[in-house]
Amino acid sequence: MQDALVIFTPSGKRGRFPLGTPVLTAARQLGVDLDSVCGGRGICSKCQITPGQGAFSKHGVTVAEGALSAWNAVEQRYHDKRGLKPGRRLGCQAQVMGDVVIDVPAESQVHRQVVRKAASARTVKMDPATRLYLVEVAEPDMHEPSGDLERLATALRTQWDIPEISAGLEVLRKLQPALRAGGWQVTVAVHADHGPGPQRILDIWPGFYEGGLYGLAIDLGSTTIAAHLCDLRTGEVVMSSGVMNPQIRFGEDLMSRVSYAMMNPGGDVEMTRAVREGLDGLIAALSEEAQVSAREIFEAVIVCNPGMHHLLLGVDPVELGQAPFALATSGALTLEARELDLAAVNPAARAYLLPCIAGHVGADAAAVALSEAPETSEDLVLVIDVGTNAEILLGDRRRVLACSSPTGPAFEGAQISSGQRAAPGAIERVEIAPVTREPRFRVIGCELWSDDPGFDAAIAATGITGICGSGIIEAVAEMRMAGLVDASGLIGSADATGSWRCQPEGRTHAYLIHDGTAAGGPRITVTQGDIRAIQLAKSALYAGARLLMDEIGTDRVDRVVLAGAFGAHISPKHAMVLGMIPDAPLDKVTSAGNAAGTGARIALCSRAARAGIEATVGRIHKVETAIEPRFQEHFVNANALPHAVDPFPELERVVPLPDVSFNTGGSAGDGGRRRRRRG
Amino acid sequence: MQDALVIFTPSGKRGRFPLGTPVLTAARQLGVDLDSVCGGRGICSKCQITPGQGAFSKHGVTVAEGALSAWNAVEQRYHDKRGLKPGRRLGCQAQVMGDVVIDVPAESQVHRQVVRKAASARTVKMDPATRLYLVEVAEPDMHEPSGDLERLATALRTQWDIPEISAGLEVLRKLQPALRAGGWQVTVAVHADHGPGPQRILDIWPGFYEGGLYGLAIDLGSTTIAAHLCDLRTGEVVMSSGVMNPQIRFGEDLMSRVSYAMMNPGGDVEMTRAVREGLDGLIAALSEEAQVSAREIFEAVIVCNPGMHHLLLGVDPVELGQAPFALATSGALTLEARELDLAAVNPAARAYLLPCIAGHVGADAAAVALSEAPETSEDLVLVIDVGTNAEILLGDRRRVLACSSPTGPAFEGAQISSGQRAAPGAIERVEIAPVTREPRFRVIGCELWSDDPGFDAAIAATGITGICGSGIIEAVAEMRMAGLVDASGLIGSADATGSWRCQPEGRTHAYLIHDGTAAGGPRITVTQGDIRAIQLAKSALYAGARLLMDEIGTDRVDRVVLAGAFGAHISPKHAMVLGMIPDAPLDKVTSAGNAAGTGARIALCSRAARAGIEATVGRIHKVETAIEPRFQEHFVNANALPHAVDPFPELERVVPLPDVSFNTGGSAGDGGRRRRRRG
Repeated sequence: MQDALVIFTPSGKRGRFPLGTPVLTAARQLGVDLDSVCGGRGICSKCQITPGQGAFSKHGVTVAEGALSAWNAVEQRYHDKRGLKPGRRLGCQAQVMGDVVIDVPAESQVHRQVVRKAASARTVKMDPATRLYLVEVAEPDMHEPSGDLERLATALRTQWDIPEISAGLEVLRKLQPALRAGGWQVTVAVHADHGPGPQRILDIWPGFYEGGLYGLAIDLGSTTIAAHLCDLRTGEVVMSSGVMNPQIRFGEDLMSRVSYAMMNPGGDVEMTRAVREGLDGLIAALSEEAQVSAREIFEAVIVCNPGMHHLLLGVDPVELGQAPFALATSGALTLEARELDLAAVNPAARAYLLPCIAGHVGADAAAVALSEAPETSEDLVLVIDVGTNAEILLGDRRRVLACSSPTGPAFEGAQISSGQRAAPGAIERVEIAPVTREPRFRVIGCELWSDDPGFDAAIAATGITGICGSGIIEAVAEMRMAGLVDASGLIGSADATGSWRCQPEGRTHAYLIHDGTAAGGPRITVTQGDIRAIQLAKSALYAGARLLMDEIGTDRVDRVVLAGAFGAHISPKHAMVLGMIPDAPLDKVTSAGNAAGTGARIALCSRAARAGIEATVGRIHKVETAIEPRFQEHFVNANALPHAVDPFPELERVVPLPDVSFNTGGSAGDGGRRRRRRG
Repeated sequence: MQDALVIFTPSGKRGRFPLGTPVLTAARQLGVDLDSVCGGRGICSKCQITPGQGAFSKHGVTVAEGALSAWNAVEQRYHDKRGLKPGRRLGCQAQVMGDVVIDVPAESQVHRQVVRKAASARTVKMDPATRLYLVEVAEPDMHEPSGDLERLATALRTQWDIPEISAGLEVLRKLQPALRAGGWQVTVAVHADHGPGPQRILDIWPGFYEGGLYGLAIDLGSTTIAAHLCDLRTGEVVMSSGVMNPQIRFGEDLMSRVSYAMMNPGGDVEMTRAVREGLDGLIAALSEEAQVSAREIFEAVIVCNPGMHHLLLGVDPVELGQAPFALATSGALTLEARELDLAAVNPAARAYLLPCIAGHVGADAAAVALSEAPETSEDLVLVIDVGTNAEILLGDRRRVLACSSPTGPAFEGAQISSGQRAAPGAIERVEIAPVTREPRFRVIGCELWSDDPGFDAAIAATGITGICGSGIIEAVAEMRMAGLVDASGLIGSADATGSWRCQPEGRTHAYLIHDGTAAGGPRITVTQGDIRAIQLAKSALYAGARLLMDEIGTDRVDRVVLAGAFGAHISPKHAMVLGMIPDAPLDKVTSAGNAAGTGARIALCSRAARAGIEATVGRIHKVETAIEPRFQEHFVNANALPHAVDPFPELERVVPLPDVSFNTGGSAGDGGRRRRRRG
């Protein structure tokens, strides 16, 4: 027998090869997805395979003993040093000696799939822009003089099919010492854009590079900046962290920052510096905690609203504050990270910003669209991402609409009398008993309810300091269901409601949730003003969703996806009680966790996803709420609090939602420490 | 008559057009080279044309009165403001009303030809990488949201056929204010690489930009840096200037700088900083003198030897100091000027470095090849460019060879007992009378010979301070022809030569050219050591040329082109007396002036030239002198001073050469002030 049949699983690809052909070579010739960084030199161990055990007789193959060459010294050395799982071989060492079925385990596939844990079954094929290649470079010949870079380019072309490369001066500076220290073998990190143009060498190391290859998925919000450090080889989130956006000191929301820029010459420059420094500091802290060096971070994908987008880029956002809300640029951007003053990454690292959909619907909404893919949905899905602004997507396979709605910061606890940001000590959950109309609550940092034994001791460290966004929403909804508030939003008096907690405050009433004054703490109430603020915010949100439904000509949606802090921390039931979102069966209301962050992570892991969302964004139909008369109409009509009784009495009162907080939906539990980001 | 025949001169292109067609439109449809920056809006006046006067009856056209529409208000306004030459019309305003011959004057052609004044007839078509475009951008529409940049890209595509553009953050920052200030009309400076990829917006101005568009042609030598500020619209050199390379303090020649880098950790970084600062300072001084602002400078083309190339890029040149003399990169480079720390140019300015030919034959040699085009020569041409190293090209249409030869700095006056750099006070020309054996000389800064009346007064300001490269070469050659030196290079005694000026110095003799000691000045002599230094240098140069002649299998060359300081300041006759260059008829020895600078300027003005030289360099055959045994052989054999008598007695003794010095050969007299760069 001169040749043998080789069948690869799970792909099913097959072919005949001369005896003695290395398995890796056979895989490459068949286009089987078998990884290799060292190009078959027995160094990287990425090409591990498992010879089949005859289980594939349905293929008509009799797998003989000795169908692969014997375990060799290279494999033994690798096994001694690092350990190979039982039954595994190195694909570059094992040679085909007879008919054989070969399994490529998931971790040996370049384009392995990363399965999200969240409800949707969406998977992402690993196809990051930056990859490592070990190459053998020809030595210089003074009779055929050519530069070391040119010979490296030839090596990458012949050994890795990379047609054209470029390199920056930093790499050029390291090139000659690296080639000589590595005995003409170097590892290079190469960045391939998803568009045309040469690939770019980001870094170079002598010999085989054993270090890390990381990227950042960054969700840059008006209020908080969240960053996820991802391993670009596996797609796993190694660690996540967040900080307040240092621009907060220039204004709580984008409009006040635009005003700051307009009133203060150079104010936009100040804000740009602030956000870049904040971002760079976060990255530095995150990588230090993860014990990853700055040089190991090669990419950052950044999603943000249009205002943050412009301020990060150093563009005055003044045009975003007035009709026609013109973006300086709407397309996706690939930049050098250093152009954004990011120093805590590799000096050649790249930054990718997703495209913006419109002047009010930013790259964060694009990231939500990338994560939730409404354009592939069979049924009509409403996706709502609430931050300081709400981004709303509505659509299905046929068309997708988008708008943003100016909800303001009430949902984040701002402009609320006892409001505070989500932090230990803040009331985050509230229930009011229908009969006694007495409240109980939970506080961030403590797992107990306020009427549980031991609660006072458990919260001694933080105290009870205020009420955060999710807390105020639940409080208002519970007040409505308990009959403390009428459909117009008016809080009744103690006489009218029969609850001593409804106490006069000026000409209106306020409901007392907690009185800590005896212990020197605050009195936490829900005032009439608080309810009006929530009504304004929820009306804006609802009106945006309705406007899109009008546009599509429907009165109902098939399902609702809640994204962002909203999805993670606010119960859908309470949202519907308040009329924040259109009614839908509760089992059709799901949380996508931090969908914008997930979208950023998908774009980080997949060049195809970048190309895909760039195309998708061009097809999304944008609806501008700011100048749409029907928006005002819906807004006014949505002011009431519709549900006087619990619309879902059969369910437990608080719907438990997975706390995905900072972690992208995909792998909330993928090791690493997590911090919480709260509404 | 519904349409009319239009014939353009000088192209001869013709076609029929409906009456009322603007001349500019007709020209564009026929592909006639008629410039326009404003796109036909009557603003830029680049499209000036002259209606023919019936002189072209040979075309069979009767040019009727009224063949063009009447002079209109736009033309009158432009004429009042700036003045139009008699007979000129604006091509965008004048409409075809009958058969007409239209002349496109040279200054209205985009690709106008720049004719070099020098001997060769080589011309360069203006085709610079950076051009200006006035565009009308669509206003934003909030119902069809797109970024301002994206609408600008659409405008450039539809109005100027630029398929794809990109822009840096600096431009993005200026984009929105510029569009609004200009009423949605902006001028953009766009850089188009000669390779594939999107074109790049370098700068943007509201409305029609009236400012300058400049580029720099830079010849970065080991000893001096020369920069020519060129108008990218005309190709003219506006001003030239030069400075000493500040790296001089780390070593006179490249090898001593390589040693400095090897002996001092971080030494290469120090040298990189020094040359970048020197270059930036030169550019700043040059543009200040020319009253051109940094923002108006969009490109720099840099030519240099491999050592300077690496040190400028920040690459340690250590590999260039030892076999196999590997370059870090040999290809052409397009960089951002700021990557080279150039601040005295537009922040988005580009730098282009010509390719290197080999480890010892750099981008300066490539520039000489671009200027002299030996690959197009019908006869066998030897091109020699002497700086601290000599670059030598030999070839014709069939093949071109290149090498470099380590002449050392003797030709530049270094390592000579009374030697000094070319500067006021230096003896630059020497004649020795054959009978009296008395010298006369000229000094830089003074037009008189030393035996002319009034010489002493004329040089009072500078004095006589030493002898520069061209001076020592002429002195040695004249000494040989006057019988003061024998074929082996030995200076005879006063007794043997009959000249009292041959005075003992140690065990050998020295020839006294000038004794200024009475006035407190120096004694300037040519010592035996000086002659030996010149012999070593000229032997190296000759041996390099011979090696290439061997390789091509010839004993003679058809013509010799002397480039660089060598060509500009050393007389070919004296060079042949010394045996520096192979003998050739004196009328076949021409000077190309600063050919490297000319090559840089050609590359600055023409993208086609960049593409051309990149291809040519790949075909040049490199000969490495350092390891070639025949080089040593030729070197030893070339030691003698062959000519005891004047080989060209029929010619005047000093061959006058045009002083092209710093100016590129192309337009030595193109206005602007000039400074001299001397060997």
